[in-house]
Amino acid sequence: MQIIQPNAIAEASTRIAPYIHRTPLVQSTLLNKLLGHEVIFKAECFQKTGAFKVRGALNTLLSLKEQGCLPEKVVAFSSGNHAQAVAWGCAQLGVKATICLPGFVSPIKRQATESYGATVINTPDRKTAEARTAEEAAKGAYVIPPFDHDMVITGQGTACFEAITDGAEPDAVFSPCGGGGLMSGTYLAAKLLKPDTLVFGGEPLQANDAAQSYRAGKIIGFDTSPPTIADGVRTPSITPRTFQYLRQLDGFFEIPEEEIIRWTQIITHLLKISCEPTSAVAMAAGAQWLATQSSSKRILVILSGGNIAHETYRRIWEKDYLGDLEHLLPQEIASSYSAATTLG
Amino acid sequence: MQIIQPNAIAEASTRIAPYIHRTPLVQSTLLNKLLGHEVIFKAECFQKTGAFKVRGALNTLLSLKEQGCLPEKVVAFSSGNHAQAVAWGCAQLGVKATICLPGFVSPIKRQATESYGATVINTPDRKTAEARTAEEAAKGAYVIPPFDHDMVITGQGTACFEAITDGAEPDAVFSPCGGGGLMSGTYLAAKLLKPDTLVFGGEPLQANDAAQSYRAGKIIGFDTSPPTIADGVRTPSITPRTFQYLRQLDGFFEIPEEEIIRWTQIITHLLKISCEPTSAVAMAAGAQWLATQSSSKRILVILSGGNIAHETYRRIWEKDYLGDLEHLLPQEIASSYSAATTLG
Repeated sequence: MQIIQPNAIAEASTRIAPYIHRTPLVQSTLLNKLLGHEVIFKAECFQKTGAFKVRGALNTLLSLKEQGCLPEKVVAFSSGNHAQAVAWGCAQLGVKATICLPGFVSPIKRQATESYGATVINTPDRKTAEARTAEEAAKGAYVIPPFDHDMVITGQGTACFEAITDGAEPDAVFSPCGGGGLMSGTYLAAKLLKPDTLVFGGEPLQANDAAQSYRAGKIIGFDTSPPTIADGVRTPSITPRTFQYLRQLDGFFEIPEEEIIRWTQIITHLLKISCEPTSAVAMAAGAQWLATQSSSKRILVILSGGNIAHETYRRIWEKDYLGDLEHLLPQEIASSYSAATTLG
Repeated sequence: MQIIQPNAIAEASTRIAPYIHRTPLVQSTLLNKLLGHEVIFKAECFQKTGAFKVRGALNTLLSLKEQGCLPEKVVAFSSGNHAQAVAWGCAQLGVKATICLPGFVSPIKRQATESYGATVINTPDRKTAEARTAEEAAKGAYVIPPFDHDMVITGQGTACFEAITDGAEPDAVFSPCGGGGLMSGTYLAAKLLKPDTLVFGGEPLQANDAAQSYRAGKIIGFDTSPPTIADGVRTPSITPRTFQYLRQLDGFFEIPEEEIIRWTQIITHLLKISCEPTSAVAMAAGAQWLATQSSSKRILVILSGGNIAHETYRRIWEKDYLGDLEHLLPQEIASSYSAATTLG
């Protein structure tokens, strides 16, 4: 299988830049103070369609166009951010898009996908969505898959590429890992620009197929989508294409559900931005790594997006984790802090 | 009573600019499409401390400094954004701050206030907080009140001033109204830069003292803080100082609680930012006005801040209002839209 040359990420970044937002790097002074480290977030919730996914979709379409083979029709299936990304990307280039939305999809997600001019096909489940996608492909539509595609991986890497180019200078980079598209691209971007940067993946403990594969040295997948609140990384399995990059990472952190929710609350509260639980997985991983460090470090956390279904919002805010921010503190600071709060 | 000259807003803007964020103007393409109008949001949730309040506090301190009478000690009481604003402002200028936090204040809010170096005094209720503030004042501390103060009003007006200077060009401006500091400043800024701009206030229906006063032509207040989820505008009464500007507004819209929550959800979802229910009041007012317009209009909505207590988050996301975005659509678009969604 072909290996993506890291420089392809730089080319993709130039290619897609005129169409997308150069999303900001954001920080929380209070969070940095509490952790005793510096955390720089790449806020892809402010990307077109609210997630990084447009990078891969757009890079695929523009690469095809450069090669003189822009398709007339594109098809994709996804219940998540990839659906809107493909719909939006196609709209930019005047390509007809058909999006198969499997299972229940909230009206607002459907509305957003249609607002980009895509034809939406609702199917009862993932299997039917795959079948309908194959039908469309058989009729000549080009399939843009969510991650198992070199141009998609290359496009996703541009988020980390921008962040480091914009001066993030991280000791380590953290990204959520589902099928491994964003994670692989992030790895390639970091290796291209700053080869000594550590790169780690964050995965929900309940959906830890990539971490299991990493440990085993071979791909281990789930039969069905594992249950986790981080719906962007419910992918049952990585693929040989993404595994060739994932196996080179510096490690994986496996995050329990409660910890994902806790970090979703903390990021939302401190940064004032919408943070998908999937994005919080990356920060939770970063926090675990920072807790093992004896000197102050700077990390880059790729916040993948900010599209959150109502039911997920409800679950996020059910319990209160904002009251225990002191748990973030390194021990010595914590004790002096407690002393201070007993005054007045 | 002295009238603030509109040009004071321009001076305040220059004065405080080196210390604060020039917060972005943000829009949602989908929202504009659904409404058939253009809505420009001034996102003060990204302001220092997460709310516009630093503008007034800082303008007061810097004005005093210019006059050669920067106080050594400052005192303020507030259970809301004003507390952190004064603490932060004092930290910038090396002034000692004492903040009286009345009633229950969440640990994270206390933590934030203390993180700016302020001395926090917890008091059981508002009355005790007032008394403690008076004690500190008697000992020589300068009191920065949340709105009944010319330099505070002038500072708050800089949010609207920046927005119009940055090219918002609104037909009408909407701001939430509590004590009337932000609202009065907004009015002055609009009149200074674009005198034909309409300026409207949004108020929770359950806390409509300013709207009542506006109608009656005299100040009508509540005895105690009225119950509304929009905790930034629970002020029982406006004052003669703010009423002289508020009575000149083009009108008030009084927003039911459910509508406040609905707009909080919509703004959060479409803009990916933290939106206090208080901020949603302004957008709800804008939506009511837009619904009466026969041609396409552009409005500016001042989003006051993004500091939300856990319990408020829980209440915001209890019910699902994201499923009924079609209600936003003008009628003709709505019917063609429904026709489209029945396909596939």
